[in-house]
Amino acid sequence: MTGERTQNDPLVIKEQGSFAAGGTVIASPGEFDPKNLFKTGGQTLHGDHLYTFYQVPENARKLPLVFWHGYGQFSKTWETTPDGREGFQNIFLRRNFGVYLIDQPRRGNAGRSTKPGSINAVPDEQKWFTIFRLGIWPEFFPGVQFSKNPESLNQFFRQLTPDTAPIDINVNADAVAALFDRIGPGLLVTHSHSGGMGWVAVLKSNKIKGVVSYEPGSGFIFPEGEVPAPMPSSGGNLKAIGVPLANFLKLTKIPIVIYYGDNIPSEPSDSPSQDQWRIHLAMAKLWVDAVNRHGGDAALVHLPEIGIYGNTHFPFSDLNNREIADLMYDFLAEKNLN
Amino acid sequence: MTGERTQNDPLVIKEQGSFAAGGTVIASPGEFDPKNLFKTGGQTLHGDHLYTFYQVPENARKLPLVFWHGYGQFSKTWETTPDGREGFQNIFLRRNFGVYLIDQPRRGNAGRSTKPGSINAVPDEQKWFTIFRLGIWPEFFPGVQFSKNPESLNQFFRQLTPDTAPIDINVNADAVAALFDRIGPGLLVTHSHSGGMGWVAVLKSNKIKGVVSYEPGSGFIFPEGEVPAPMPSSGGNLKAIGVPLANFLKLTKIPIVIYYGDNIPSEPSDSPSQDQWRIHLAMAKLWVDAVNRHGGDAALVHLPEIGIYGNTHFPFSDLNNREIADLMYDFLAEKNLN
Repeated sequence: MTGERTQNDPLVIKEQGSFAAGGTVIASPGEFDPKNLFKTGGQTLHGDHLYTFYQVPENARKLPLVFWHGYGQFSKTWETTPDGREGFQNIFLRRNFGVYLIDQPRRGNAGRSTKPGSINAVPDEQKWFTIFRLGIWPEFFPGVQFSKNPESLNQFFRQLTPDTAPIDINVNADAVAALFDRIGPGLLVTHSHSGGMGWVAVLKSNKIKGVVSYEPGSGFIFPEGEVPAPMPSSGGNLKAIGVPLANFLKLTKIPIVIYYGDNIPSEPSDSPSQDQWRIHLAMAKLWVDAVNRHGGDAALVHLPEIGIYGNTHFPFSDLNNREIADLMYDFLAEKNLN
Repeated sequence: MTGERTQNDPLVIKEQGSFAAGGTVIASPGEFDPKNLFKTGGQTLHGDHLYTFYQVPENARKLPLVFWHGYGQFSKTWETTPDGREGFQNIFLRRNFGVYLIDQPRRGNAGRSTKPGSINAVPDEQKWFTIFRLGIWPEFFPGVQFSKNPESLNQFFRQLTPDTAPIDINVNADAVAALFDRIGPGLLVTHSHSGGMGWVAVLKSNKIKGVVSYEPGSGFIFPEGEVPAPMPSSGGNLKAIGVPLANFLKLTKIPIVIYYGDNIPSEPSDSPSQDQWRIHLAMAKLWVDAVNRHGGDAALVHLPEIGIYGNTHFPFSDLNNREIADLMYDFLAEKNLN
């Protein structure tokens, strides 16, 4: 790309900061007693907001990018990669986009909730290594776009962070809509679990002018009467959601692109970690067809089909993430969203 | 200050990113079964690290600043102020310091722990308003350096975030020492609860070359045999900690400055929120005397005594935070730490 800043140039930031968006307030009945600070009477709790750290470069493009992490993850997803290179935060700042990195309600820096939570400490990282398609533990997939340096895996595992209270899709989508209300029109970039919640956010906000979705998980929304049958796999069933057609049509008003990585089998597999992605990819194809059938503008890119191999569930932080960023940039340019 | 960049100039960032530092790993006995991902056998959990987001400006000074939040807080402490102005992150970037903002283990973006946790959702914000000396709820203190705009209080309350597992002072200090091991010599800036943990970190790391501590809370460390008697207050008792003299002497090898704000009574008070700060301030004075008695270089600045009024428990994000930053900068300059 012409004019792109390289990794060695300084970032020139016109403005950066952080704030909470959305959320609710609960209150205890009674009167506050300043002599007895631990009585809850008359006290409030502000929770269920999202937190965002944002940066706006000099000569920023009109539409900023709002980056929303996936399940068990937080804003780190878009920052430094596990092997220490620049993530999408820096890459798209260098391409003159404003970037908003969010922690969804009850995750990471948005931990304060109006609901209680409990967190176990059960070892589960070999599961995530496998579900996130780095390989089948302890083997990496051949040619996988993930560094074999042990420190990379250490950093990758430490990108996990728990929910401080139960996930609530509407709470999350409401907070994202509140963020767009505050910042104005922009583009939403989702990953995995936030893929499905991102569709809900589009239903709630007319300020989302385009969506880039990496490996969206459950939560595909179809018009009532057109909902596909649940899809079985050795990694569990995948159900789609029906909404009134008038709501669904909001998803047809903006450009949408979906990317899936490599090592997703095309036929049923007894490897549950891989097979669940087979049905997600299949459901995503049906969904793109439904959006376009109703006049929308959605595309699905299965990376190996365009000759890009080895990507995990995290293409934007994989070893070839600059190539993945180029694809996303080209999509935005093609749709006049840049 | 000559050459200082103003709030309207762009920030020129040579490098920025994030990583985890410190932490441990636990493992379940047995063998991982990729066909049964939810069996814990053979799986690991990486937790109890800290998380940091760092920025290094062009022409950075030699020693970066590591900012450590207080109790119930996270890295937001140092970012945008509750009323939307620049916090110490930006202010000290503009003064050409590298800045590392941390979330301590089991807080914010470092939520992944090897210990389980439970989080209640009990309203408690009027307690914090009062303990943090914005006023005695619902009244602000006259002349307090906090905006009366309701959105400021909304943002301030949403800066709270819970512990995802019990606080462990040694886990936290070890993670901070690991951070300094990775980044090399630097300066530690603490607030409230991290004040006491910061002294422990100095005992664990010889890479901490100076400490700036805002309203340090419990955890003052004295040589064994010189530990002051516990101090009573209407807000609870304050106990100091004894360590072998050889350990204590590490605190005498670096410049240290402590700041306390306004509305701390000089005589015992029946307002527990204020009275607890009276004894913290009194203990801090004894501590500074002990450090200096043993050849150290510690100073305590009670802001009203130098004509700076109205500061809360968060001087660095109060309305006069640029004046507070000037004080800190002048201290660093005087000690050749800039």
